[in-house]
Amino acid sequence: MVLRLSSLFLRTLREDPVDAEVASHKLLVRAGYIRRAAPGIYTWLPMGLRVLAKVEAIVREEMNSIGAQEVHFPALLPREPYEATNRWTEYGEGLFRLQDRKGADYLLAPTHEEMFTLLVKDLYNSYKDLPAYLYQIQNKYRDEARPRAGLLRGREFIMKDSYSFDIDDDGLEAAYQAHRAAYIKIFARLGLEVLPVFATAGAMGGSKSEEFLHPTPVGEDTFVRSAGGYAANVEAVTTVVPADIDFTDAPAFEVMDTPDTPTIDTLVAVANQMAARPEGPWEAIDTLKNVVLAAKLPTGERQLVVLGVPGDRAVDFKRVEANIASHLEVGGEVEIEAATEADLKKHPTLIKGYIGPGNGLDHAVLGSQGASGILFLVDPRVVSGTSWITGANEAGKHVFGLVAGRDFTWDGTIEAVEVRAGDPAPDGSGPLETARGIEMGHIFQLGRKYAEALDLKVLDQNGKLKVVTMGSYGIGVTRAVAALAESNHDENGLVWPRNVAPADVHLVVTGKQAELFEAAEKIATELEARGIEVMYDDRPKVSAGVKFSDAELIGVPTIVVIGRGLAEGVVEVKDRATGEAANVAVDEVVELLVTTVNG
Amino acid sequence: MVLRLSSLFLRTLREDPVDAEVASHKLLVRAGYIRRAAPGIYTWLPMGLRVLAKVEAIVREEMNSIGAQEVHFPALLPREPYEATNRWTEYGEGLFRLQDRKGADYLLAPTHEEMFTLLVKDLYNSYKDLPAYLYQIQNKYRDEARPRAGLLRGREFIMKDSYSFDIDDDGLEAAYQAHRAAYIKIFARLGLEVLPVFATAGAMGGSKSEEFLHPTPVGEDTFVRSAGGYAANVEAVTTVVPADIDFTDAPAFEVMDTPDTPTIDTLVAVANQMAARPEGPWEAIDTLKNVVLAAKLPTGERQLVVLGVPGDRAVDFKRVEANIASHLEVGGEVEIEAATEADLKKHPTLIKGYIGPGNGLDHAVLGSQGASGILFLVDPRVVSGTSWITGANEAGKHVFGLVAGRDFTWDGTIEAVEVRAGDPAPDGSGPLETARGIEMGHIFQLGRKYAEALDLKVLDQNGKLKVVTMGSYGIGVTRAVAALAESNHDENGLVWPRNVAPADVHLVVTGKQAELFEAAEKIATELEARGIEVMYDDRPKVSAGVKFSDAELIGVPTIVVIGRGLAEGVVEVKDRATGEAANVAVDEVVELLVTTVNG
Repeated sequence: MVLRLSSLFLRTLREDPVDAEVASHKLLVRAGYIRRAAPGIYTWLPMGLRVLAKVEAIVREEMNSIGAQEVHFPALLPREPYEATNRWTEYGEGLFRLQDRKGADYLLAPTHEEMFTLLVKDLYNSYKDLPAYLYQIQNKYRDEARPRAGLLRGREFIMKDSYSFDIDDDGLEAAYQAHRAAYIKIFARLGLEVLPVFATAGAMGGSKSEEFLHPTPVGEDTFVRSAGGYAANVEAVTTVVPADIDFTDAPAFEVMDTPDTPTIDTLVAVANQMAARPEGPWEAIDTLKNVVLAAKLPTGERQLVVLGVPGDRAVDFKRVEANIASHLEVGGEVEIEAATEADLKKHPTLIKGYIGPGNGLDHAVLGSQGASGILFLVDPRVVSGTSWITGANEAGKHVFGLVAGRDFTWDGTIEAVEVRAGDPAPDGSGPLETARGIEMGHIFQLGRKYAEALDLKVLDQNGKLKVVTMGSYGIGVTRAVAALAESNHDENGLVWPRNVAPADVHLVVTGKQAELFEAAEKIATELEARGIEVMYDDRPKVSAGVKFSDAELIGVPTIVVIGRGLAEGVVEVKDRATGEAANVAVDEVVELLVTTVNG
Repeated sequence: MVLRLSSLFLRTLREDPVDAEVASHKLLVRAGYIRRAAPGIYTWLPMGLRVLAKVEAIVREEMNSIGAQEVHFPALLPREPYEATNRWTEYGEGLFRLQDRKGADYLLAPTHEEMFTLLVKDLYNSYKDLPAYLYQIQNKYRDEARPRAGLLRGREFIMKDSYSFDIDDDGLEAAYQAHRAAYIKIFARLGLEVLPVFATAGAMGGSKSEEFLHPTPVGEDTFVRSAGGYAANVEAVTTVVPADIDFTDAPAFEVMDTPDTPTIDTLVAVANQMAARPEGPWEAIDTLKNVVLAAKLPTGERQLVVLGVPGDRAVDFKRVEANIASHLEVGGEVEIEAATEADLKKHPTLIKGYIGPGNGLDHAVLGSQGASGILFLVDPRVVSGTSWITGANEAGKHVFGLVAGRDFTWDGTIEAVEVRAGDPAPDGSGPLETARGIEMGHIFQLGRKYAEALDLKVLDQNGKLKVVTMGSYGIGVTRAVAALAESNHDENGLVWPRNVAPADVHLVVTGKQAELFEAAEKIATELEARGIEVMYDDRPKVSAGVKFSDAELIGVPTIVVIGRGLAEGVVEVKDRATGEAANVAVDEVVELLVTTVNG
């Protein structure tokens, strides 16, 4: 069916929508692909739906090709399965919850691990039934605190989510690798550059996990990579841990008056003065700052945590959020913020600006065993034998030469501080550089967490019940459309890769003579008969200028102009991406276009 | 891709699910097409999804063929547009409502008139843009009081909904007829018998409306039809109204003692005794019973209404619900129930068993002008001049010969009583018979209700702003799958029509010899190369009996058995619907099957 602009449900806009910040959002709205229905919730217009359908088809084909089978779950689900895995609570405010007319609790599913687990439990009971790979392409719901950037972070969006079920870890690894390979193919076919990076599993639980990031400056995710091939998102980067230091000969710590040094900068200035003294042993030691944070638990509770980190490194709250759950003995998404004055008042042993891990082992303040009772975690660089300038838990005083493992202990270590360009990659592949990206996909080895919670067991080769191990794999389908727009546009509009373009060829008639329209109709009909998808600007009263700018905005890969040249038997064929144009004999143009489109 | 039963995510069940009452529900679950996730909420397994996709494709093709353009709206929508049309309230308990993390009100859309209206308002502004037909195939949500019969009445379900936008009534009529014709084609292609019947518009508002009912005893909707071609759902049937009667010579009414006659039956017995007296004039008059009902308004209010209806007709609450809104000056869905003792106590002028429309014009009890102040509606058969035995508003007394229009008045007429087989069709096409059906589609001429509420106007030919007129057209897509199963099964399982079957051919190997499996593989490969969809029961250790019963349960139209006959060079080809089977030479079977499938 030829898409005729005279009747196509499409209106282009000259102005950017006021709420749009990124190019994909601006252009998808301006070119008539989507419209906003509510914050983070979009309507798909006919052109948008065509692109979306092509993306879905590629995803579907590659999932089918690894033997994954398509199913379709409801979006509206009862509370109980999510209660069993504790996610009803753990998801916190990010979950849309509602009640039916009888007062029963429901949710709009943000992801479907529970339901897939229960379905496999319902149908399967033997190791012979495994492996099983199941997937769906379906609406997901997340009540984002800050929906942004159009389709890039929405509240209703389409995901392909798949799940693997295996009897053992080898099976899970094979399923993971099959999905990883399929994802690489999918993004290649979409024409979307992605980089698999190590990731943390976050609220999903599980162990091994990689994100597929599309590098772009508008991405929300910061990641790092080394020239040697290491890549990880910032949450997942691990610090190169120094070796322990023998502290046998380390001098004893010394409490000193350091008035007016409530901040690291003021302390460092004083410490430098100290170091300049001929009599002191403290010329080469670093400051340890003890940062009080509040963790907002999914249960609604607020728990204080102190982080002891090198004074020259800022705490990265997202890294803390990604890595703190195991220390809190609480699953789910934890929100981290700086402790408030009110928080501090409840703990009189904490003296702002002079907080330290204790003045010695026998009168510790921090740590679960200390006077404050507050969990005390340290940066991985704080290894046994390192010596620090830190707070003395007394106003105006710091302690110099406090030795880790000798003078203070901690409850655990945590990856909590900012990663910097130049930090070493953990695998020794060189210094890291930072970049930004959009998360396009995510693959997880979930392991047995969900199967255990929901009691998914099958009989193994020996007739014994065994808990199944699972993987979970997602691709943001609507997000992929936005990322494609983000990475395929110029100042005039969208420039779709051929595999996902809403049409193959855009015919533009410039002029009013009937012969032009007749020639265009003939080309359109012939192209369609050859399986080419044609958009045809047949609007009789629209100027050539408007038609050209609409064509550039809409972004179909090949534009054919039927205009003055027709009198000499030629039409112009223009490549939207390169801008290259050539006159082609009108009776050769169909053949040329078929070759161009089919590659 | 050949669907191999050894790995297909499918398990058949020998037992009916405990919650299933109708055949489609039992068989779709037992044959592994769907699973229940919550009341009225279902998961689609791979086979179910294949049938669903075929139904959707047929719907899509026919919608495209009338020039309708596909879009896709969110399911999660903000309150405001539904507030503007009052449906936020009118939908009552049937609407799933929720709030986001900021406390803003949202709903899960039961239908999308508002959003389509706003979208057209956003894009279009001239009569030249019209007509526009838009549609989507999308998840809908309704919090049914009694979800039942599996997919037949669900709470999350897929609908195709389309909307037409026209500048004038002629355009709307053309849009309505185009959709009507497309619907007839769609159901024909699906192989689903439907009957277009006149309907009421219910909560949708609007005027002309027809339902497409699939006749089946398990249908929830009762409808009537005449041999002469009239068909209407019971709510929409209109009574043949008798002519007014000249009451100039009618005798005056007479109040009589009728002790112990609180019910119509006891009253009729007494009336018959009266009629037998030689002195009375009352031999030929009917009883008028005055039934007190409570209307539960969408606003939550409870309003009493009295219906005056012929004593021999029961009140049909669904008919009352469908027709009462205009009398209440309240839109939306009204729920009707019998008045309670508590309701009656609030109105001491109503004496149970002896309620009447007043003993004369000067001391009326019922009606908005009467002593009770209660709205008084009558059956259309109560025309001016009809004479009735009815309550005298005094315990133990009835009035005989109370003449409508002379001795009592009413606030309006309403289609409220049961329709009976044998009642005349309103168009004179003969007596009605009753039947049951499932509503498969519904087409409405909405008119200007939504466009007015949401201010959708375009410039007309004279440059003046004109309100657009709309139609709304729905097909229950998931419901169609259930209806197809309902009308295409036998005692052994499903019997899919070819157009929607999950596969074209089901190969069954009976026996363990390698040659059988090799032959089956060869047939499967050749069929697939010819575009035939193949299901192949390649399970090596499953008995022939189980394979046969699974094949019959699953319901693929053609079953091919590769078994003992192969030694003589034949396989058995069996038609699932007729049970006819024939031996076919193995080297001719592919050609035969291609011909069978392609018709």
